[in-house]
Amino acid sequence: MCHALTGDAHAAGHHGDPDRPGWWDNLIGPGRPLDTDRYFVVSANVLGGCRGTTGPGSADPSTGRPYGLRFPLLSVIDLVEVHRALIRHLGITRLLGAIGGSLGGMQVLQWAMDHPGELAGALTVAASARLSAQNIAFSAVAREAIMRDPDFAGGDYYAAEHSRPDRGLMLARMIAHITYLSEASMREKFGRRIQDAAEPRYGFDVDFEVESYLEHQGRSFLKRFDANTYLYLTRVMDYYDPFGGDPAILAAKLARVDARFLVLSFDSDWRFSTGHARDIVRTLSAARVPVTFREIASSHGHDSFLLPVPEYHRTVAGFLDRLAADADAP
Amino acid sequence: MCHALTGDAHAAGHHGDPDRPGWWDNLIGPGRPLDTDRYFVVSANVLGGCRGTTGPGSADPSTGRPYGLRFPLLSVIDLVEVHRALIRHLGITRLLGAIGGSLGGMQVLQWAMDHPGELAGALTVAASARLSAQNIAFSAVAREAIMRDPDFAGGDYYAAEHSRPDRGLMLARMIAHITYLSEASMREKFGRRIQDAAEPRYGFDVDFEVESYLEHQGRSFLKRFDANTYLYLTRVMDYYDPFGGDPAILAAKLARVDARFLVLSFDSDWRFSTGHARDIVRTLSAARVPVTFREIASSHGHDSFLLPVPEYHRTVAGFLDRLAADADAP
Repeated sequence: MCHALTGDAHAAGHHGDPDRPGWWDNLIGPGRPLDTDRYFVVSANVLGGCRGTTGPGSADPSTGRPYGLRFPLLSVIDLVEVHRALIRHLGITRLLGAIGGSLGGMQVLQWAMDHPGELAGALTVAASARLSAQNIAFSAVAREAIMRDPDFAGGDYYAAEHSRPDRGLMLARMIAHITYLSEASMREKFGRRIQDAAEPRYGFDVDFEVESYLEHQGRSFLKRFDANTYLYLTRVMDYYDPFGGDPAILAAKLARVDARFLVLSFDSDWRFSTGHARDIVRTLSAARVPVTFREIASSHGHDSFLLPVPEYHRTVAGFLDRLAADADAP
Repeated sequence: MCHALTGDAHAAGHHGDPDRPGWWDNLIGPGRPLDTDRYFVVSANVLGGCRGTTGPGSADPSTGRPYGLRFPLLSVIDLVEVHRALIRHLGITRLLGAIGGSLGGMQVLQWAMDHPGELAGALTVAASARLSAQNIAFSAVAREAIMRDPDFAGGDYYAAEHSRPDRGLMLARMIAHITYLSEASMREKFGRRIQDAAEPRYGFDVDFEVESYLEHQGRSFLKRFDANTYLYLTRVMDYYDPFGGDPAILAAKLARVDARFLVLSFDSDWRFSTGHARDIVRTLSAARVPVTFREIASSHGHDSFLLPVPEYHRTVAGFLDRLAADADAP
């Protein structure tokens, strides 16, 4: 499985504290859709990230200092290559499936396109093969917030005595978080309720519950994320365009794809709406790649891919069942 | 007419340079819906603004220095009171109509609710009587961007030797601007085109056209707007809730309303969607206030209220015609 922009390798289970399960714990485990009694699940940090695999915060061996913005710009192809190296290292030549949400789904799509024979199934959830102008705009403002933070220092803020661009990263997270929820789920979750009070305080401090929530989301993000990684991985997504370029080359590439696709979207997701999923489905289907497509009803917006939405989980489990049955067939 | 968050008194015509017409010039003028051959149009800056009427950047008479955050928090009621004072000063006791888009529409609604007898017609365009959690969230992040800018200095940045919180105000404008356009209009306007080049440059500088556009919007906003005004007026909107409070008091107030309403929304507006307009219509209609409601088809999102959308302009012109005919009737 391939994690999303701010995810990491800790997808399921816990490391001693049951209150800190992995971010996809509801999907992965005994009896769950990615049933660990039946499947061997591999989860690794993404290249360019800040939770284990090399990224802009890693030491450049040639200088001994963190790369910062000297880290090379990445593409989804690079992210997939690192995961493939791990799979080879584990002695695996063919996977039953690769699954990922959002940026994770982009990796799955790319993997299936570039490496026939390696995946029986490719499961993309709330993903896109081509960010829209609005998608790029939100990420652009988030990056501006980081890069204009006086503490950003051109990306060289890692020294212990240096402040980190926390203001910018926090704003970036707050902006993004609005786009991960649907308007309906925000209304249901917060409405216009006032934080810890019956009456508004009337001022510029946090007053509405939704403000308090966003501030909390922004602040807790600082503990686990690196601003440069945010720049690199959002830019990977902006530039991702696997169906672009020469149509003849694309057609030849898609003709070789042998993975079966499950493409899932959520009807309230406005970050990567069903239109993004349909674009993937349309292109793959036109090239006769087998695709199953479902738009799942869920009020939780883009974040739905992290939540135990029954139809979503049933669909993933059923798709894996069929892949496994075909793999076991003589 | 009442202007929106970042508007000003210069709604129509020009002051010597025909290339710099007012922001509602397509709506106001000879032969236009607000036909200056027939109607006397009054347009004034809003209280708390930065283009003429007193605001946080004005000098506090008691100290001689700008108010900054010592300026009192405002409500839509206060904004209306200042416009009413101007109308009285002009010797006008009753207006054919008040019209406003977005925050301007809020002023119109409040005016009609609080002051029976003063308006024959109340025209609200792309307005809301109650911001949603998502609306508040976007404004909250914009304010965070301003208030966390190190140059904000608690709002006391007016001295000539002081830098202004330009980074924060620019980010605020960029975030807001995304919400003023529809996803479809952004796709049509920019798509994934690269600025001034055929091929991407691959980097963190502005590369896509949509990035260049947002940056330009943010930068040019700095020349005409004050960060403290941005804080005050967005907070006015967050707290606005004219239908809230005691239902019996509201019912008594609405029973006295004698203005006829035209409530307009645009089908692609996701900042103040048609749902916001319907809430206004539902509450007014339940109180037997006469309301005409139209959802106008336009792909331009919230910004549609500034654009010459034919059905929108025809509807405004027709509504004013009927008001004028009734006013002329013996």
